[in-house]
Amino acid sequence: MTSQISEPYKIGDGYKAMLQFQSTNVNENQQILNDQNSKNKLTLSDKLKNWSIQGFENHNIRDELNRIMSTSEIFKSNELDITKEANRVLVLKQVLEITRGIFEKGLIQITDLRDDPSKILAFIDIVSQFDDPSLMTKLIVNNFLFGAAVFNLGTDRHHKLLPDIQSGRLLGCFAMTELGHGSNVRSLETTATYDPKTDEFIIQTPYRTSTKWWIGNAAHAQIASVFARLIMDDGKDHEVHCFLVPIRKSNGFDLLPGVKIGDVGAKFGLHGVDNGWIQFDKVRIPSSNLLDRFGSVENGVYSSPIKNPSRRFANILAQMITGRITISFGSTRTLKSGIIIATRYACKRLQFGPTSTSPEIPILSYPTHQLAIMPMIASTYAFDAIKIYLGKRFQERTDEAEIHVLASGLKAITSQFTTVSLVELRKLCGGHGYAGYSRLGKILSSIDVGRTFEGDNTLLLQQVAKDLLTQFKKEYSGNKFTGTLKYLGKNTSLLLSGMNPITTMRSDDTHLLSFQFLLDCMEFRSSKLLIQSAQTVSKNYKKTKESFTAWNQSLEILIHLAKAHTETIILQKFIEKVQIEKDLELSSILKKLCQLYGLYIIREDFEFFRNSNYLKKGKAKAIIKLIGQLCSDLSQQAMVLVKGFGNEEYMINSALGMEEGDLYENICKQVGGPFTKDNYIQSKL
Amino acid sequence: MTSQISEPYKIGDGYKAMLQFQSTNVNENQQILNDQNSKNKLTLSDKLKNWSIQGFENHNIRDELNRIMSTSEIFKSNELDITKEANRVLVLKQVLEITRGIFEKGLIQITDLRDDPSKILAFIDIVSQFDDPSLMTKLIVNNFLFGAAVFNLGTDRHHKLLPDIQSGRLLGCFAMTELGHGSNVRSLETTATYDPKTDEFIIQTPYRTSTKWWIGNAAHAQIASVFARLIMDDGKDHEVHCFLVPIRKSNGFDLLPGVKIGDVGAKFGLHGVDNGWIQFDKVRIPSSNLLDRFGSVENGVYSSPIKNPSRRFANILAQMITGRITISFGSTRTLKSGIIIATRYACKRLQFGPTSTSPEIPILSYPTHQLAIMPMIASTYAFDAIKIYLGKRFQERTDEAEIHVLASGLKAITSQFTTVSLVELRKLCGGHGYAGYSRLGKILSSIDVGRTFEGDNTLLLQQVAKDLLTQFKKEYSGNKFTGTLKYLGKNTSLLLSGMNPITTMRSDDTHLLSFQFLLDCMEFRSSKLLIQSAQTVSKNYKKTKESFTAWNQSLEILIHLAKAHTETIILQKFIEKVQIEKDLELSSILKKLCQLYGLYIIREDFEFFRNSNYLKKGKAKAIIKLIGQLCSDLSQQAMVLVKGFGNEEYMINSALGMEEGDLYENICKQVGGPFTKDNYIQSKL
Repeated sequence: MTSQISEPYKIGDGYKAMLQFQSTNVNENQQILNDQNSKNKLTLSDKLKNWSIQGFENHNIRDELNRIMSTSEIFKSNELDITKEANRVLVLKQVLEITRGIFEKGLIQITDLRDDPSKILAFIDIVSQFDDPSLMTKLIVNNFLFGAAVFNLGTDRHHKLLPDIQSGRLLGCFAMTELGHGSNVRSLETTATYDPKTDEFIIQTPYRTSTKWWIGNAAHAQIASVFARLIMDDGKDHEVHCFLVPIRKSNGFDLLPGVKIGDVGAKFGLHGVDNGWIQFDKVRIPSSNLLDRFGSVENGVYSSPIKNPSRRFANILAQMITGRITISFGSTRTLKSGIIIATRYACKRLQFGPTSTSPEIPILSYPTHQLAIMPMIASTYAFDAIKIYLGKRFQERTDEAEIHVLASGLKAITSQFTTVSLVELRKLCGGHGYAGYSRLGKILSSIDVGRTFEGDNTLLLQQVAKDLLTQFKKEYSGNKFTGTLKYLGKNTSLLLSGMNPITTMRSDDTHLLSFQFLLDCMEFRSSKLLIQSAQTVSKNYKKTKESFTAWNQSLEILIHLAKAHTETIILQKFIEKVQIEKDLELSSILKKLCQLYGLYIIREDFEFFRNSNYLKKGKAKAIIKLIGQLCSDLSQQAMVLVKGFGNEEYMINSALGMEEGDLYENICKQVGGPFTKDNYIQSKL
Repeated sequence: MTSQISEPYKIGDGYKAMLQFQSTNVNENQQILNDQNSKNKLTLSDKLKNWSIQGFENHNIRDELNRIMSTSEIFKSNELDITKEANRVLVLKQVLEITRGIFEKGLIQITDLRDDPSKILAFIDIVSQFDDPSLMTKLIVNNFLFGAAVFNLGTDRHHKLLPDIQSGRLLGCFAMTELGHGSNVRSLETTATYDPKTDEFIIQTPYRTSTKWWIGNAAHAQIASVFARLIMDDGKDHEVHCFLVPIRKSNGFDLLPGVKIGDVGAKFGLHGVDNGWIQFDKVRIPSSNLLDRFGSVENGVYSSPIKNPSRRFANILAQMITGRITISFGSTRTLKSGIIIATRYACKRLQFGPTSTSPEIPILSYPTHQLAIMPMIASTYAFDAIKIYLGKRFQERTDEAEIHVLASGLKAITSQFTTVSLVELRKLCGGHGYAGYSRLGKILSSIDVGRTFEGDNTLLLQQVAKDLLTQFKKEYSGNKFTGTLKYLGKNTSLLLSGMNPITTMRSDDTHLLSFQFLLDCMEFRSSKLLIQSAQTVSKNYKKTKESFTAWNQSLEILIHLAKAHTETIILQKFIEKVQIEKDLELSSILKKLCQLYGLYIIREDFEFFRNSNYLKKGKAKAIIKLIGQLCSDLSQQAMVLVKGFGNEEYMINSALGMEEGDLYENICKQVGGPFTKDNYIQSKL
């Protein structure tokens, strides 16, 4: 949309005022000029960018994605008022362009889930910068939910489908959730009943509540990976397994007999994703369509390498990890977009000055603004640190259970933080933040569902807590905590040192800014909450004699424990990364960010730290003051810090978030033109 | 949209499980049956409903609005995927239907702003229940922003326009905000230069940044109330005044010469409001079009009854109070809609049970769910109490400056709480909350702007803080605090009693649940923050010798003070209302809600209460435990409590929020039908 608003007059005096925060950026550009003889010298923002993607740089994949997305016209739509139908067609075109350009060319394969996960992380890292998160979701649904089901749950006979899936020739959908069951997937109702006469399964939707719901790609998929209860001809229910069920006639739109599909309809966001509902009425599939890695039917007999149904189902669900990692990686990229937009706006937007005639000042000058934005910037770098760690573990695939727990906790923390932050960032950008041209509303409403899909956050945090309590029990019987849980082994001594009256009172800057203090706080909290959680569950069990109820009655502390533990790991890994950084300029700024993140997290949970006597009031007040100082200091470098996020400039696509140019000229370029007469005939009374 | 999903099978066993929370409701219905002989006996939810609208019952207005909105087809659209163009046309039709049915019939007049504000409050209270907040916004823009400008800022010669404005024959818009200035309205740039030769003003947009921005009704208005700098022919700038500027040819769409109007475009929400931008190039208006209550030009000479330009402008802005009160009243109604939806869903949605074969339990059974929803319900009743008080004050119009401060604080508190709560409620409803048929996304994205328009919340809270500090200064020079500030006069003795070691330790239920304790906490906090704020500003002034900077450097505590004070008044008024309630059943439940609200607010600011030594750790822990108990207790009556909100059932319009019927049947009635082939031709590769 071209600008309809000209500047026939002169630039407002108010806007001529010095943009103090931009000057940081000017300095950085100046530095580049000064260093032009030493071509290899990187700016601080370049260093930050490189730091944040360690282990999944994969430049060839990034370059090729950037080439496709920056040149192809279908990624350039500035259209904001678009019907969901048109949006879905557009996103499908985008999906196919990327599928062909990346997967068909072999730059990534679905088998890289096992062979080289870093490729997939780099892929997510670029695609999730696009300002319509529908694209990411739809790509993931086909290749890393449907495709991953075929790869992870199937065996050789199914794997031959992978080339067609990843090239987009065979589009699939992942039919797990039902109308009546989302979190409690073990109670899914769809049935797959074995018919020995024909060696087939009959897929059936027995109740309305068993209708498959939210199924992404439902409008375009030719085949579905359907989670259904495997019931043998003797009536025995072997619980939920996954089956490949063709739903449409080959390469066409028409449905196969017995399949009914509809549109779940409008949503809060993700308008470009075709979420549908699917019902099956006596749909027959050959028994070989059972994805049979964890349970198979041969010659009419069911068998499984895992006898315990709970453990078997846990193995089936374990593949969900890709979705969770995608959300952690993807939502922090979206968070970065939001922070970039709000920070650049806050540096360029001037409002109020000392007198009614003096120049106005950038809104980032206000401490309330700094206190809101700077901890978000620090948290984002903390998330980058844990992403680097998680990426490395995902690549190495050692102790997959541990990675699974960490990925679950991180998904819950990052997705909640992203949504809540975007809600705040919208407000910080005022009316302009509410406008479509800011893109904040679009990314907020789309990314928000990250708190729900791939495992509701409250459920995921319970999984983390459950794992911690299980390990705690083992610790009692002599097995030591290992891996990311190792720090919990120190708990007794920690609890004691935490109560040292000198430490709890000490409130000088050197102490409060030390990594040791920050870590001690975090580790003390998790350890104490772990012990208290175990006591609470046990006490409630003694009262109720019923483990389900005892667990539920303990939920508040269990969720608290899971968050505390995940935040501890985030801080640990951030500190580790800062400590090994050799570049002084880089380590110096990362250190400040790490200090701000740590103190911010501690302040967010003063309730715990004060009530457990770990911090005395003087110390707590000193922390508040330090946070204010760090926010003020770091705000001077805000423009460099958000450039250091490394989001591709061409994908920011927000009139408020452009690094270059006049804020208001950028807005006018994206704003709408005259109202059209046709639509407003009603205004004539 | 009719249901596309049939129930060809049987109802899911899982769904047959006992709905324990609904039984509360069943009990209430049972009670009605039992009491059928005493027809006058009200249910508890009826009593709650009547309680919450005291002083602005105005049943004739409510009844007529309900008649119009429940019968007219244009209010029944279930369409969720609608273009902004179509949405705007629909909302305009709705506006005109209400304007004709209510205002033209004389049930309410714009002059009721002065004569009987309760009518306007009743009007807001019904219209804001409609599931598209665009309707409320557009009605307010015409009648209570544009119309109020004419009424409050104009004189007799302008008031003759009021009948045409309120009947919808003359649609207007309120052109205050500019592209470059929203919060700092005193620095608006549009000029109105007096031409003595023709006794006219020339309206001019001097810079791009001076373009009027966000102007609601811009597509439909024939006239604008334009805020512009009044500049006399001697060049003297008399600062911002308001002028009536015709923008369209009579009753038509075409623009008058020199007027340029365009669409601000897509937004996060409020898609039905035609927000536009307007530029003026040498547009001439007769001098009589100046709304001249606070400043006039007669025979070429400017004069004003208020000599001080700051005070004059403050008087002009004082009319904004209607907008702020509308947002407080309107956004709490929207919050109620959201809570009703999430609570009924939480009672009907079952997930997980003690074993994989036992019945599942309603998700409201989970303590984490109760801890999230029940404080929202309690807060809503607290907001109702302060609304009753504010409504009474608004009606009596005594000490308008005090009402203005209270309305500003309340607007900031309620709008922020509403947005943040709706974000949480969406998550609590899981995937179904994300679906359009929940209506949560639509109301969230629309109401969110309430934090920004009619005064950015951070700005409004600063106004509250500024007033408190001004009164504090006066107190020092012998003037006593009056009205809602009276409690601050007790501060010295309070500060002392707060430090009483026995009180700070006492942690028995009787003490913690006593209104006296809750009030003491609140009043101690405001008083202490007031003293600290004064000290902080004064200290910063000594450092900087510059009041603008000194104020800005103190922002964190000033905002804290403003929130604390507003929350104190809310709790005070809630307690007062509960204490005078004679109906035992009603006062008993309100008392619990009031206790929960008070303890919840205290816990939210443990940082302050613990760091100021007002609460010792044992007491803080006892509060946390009590909150859990109150949430659990009150959750048993959740269905009654949300019915007691009194929202009209026909306007809830959410598949999750229906009081009656099967949850999943309700969803299926609203969900979309089959995907259409035309839109998905791209799926054929």
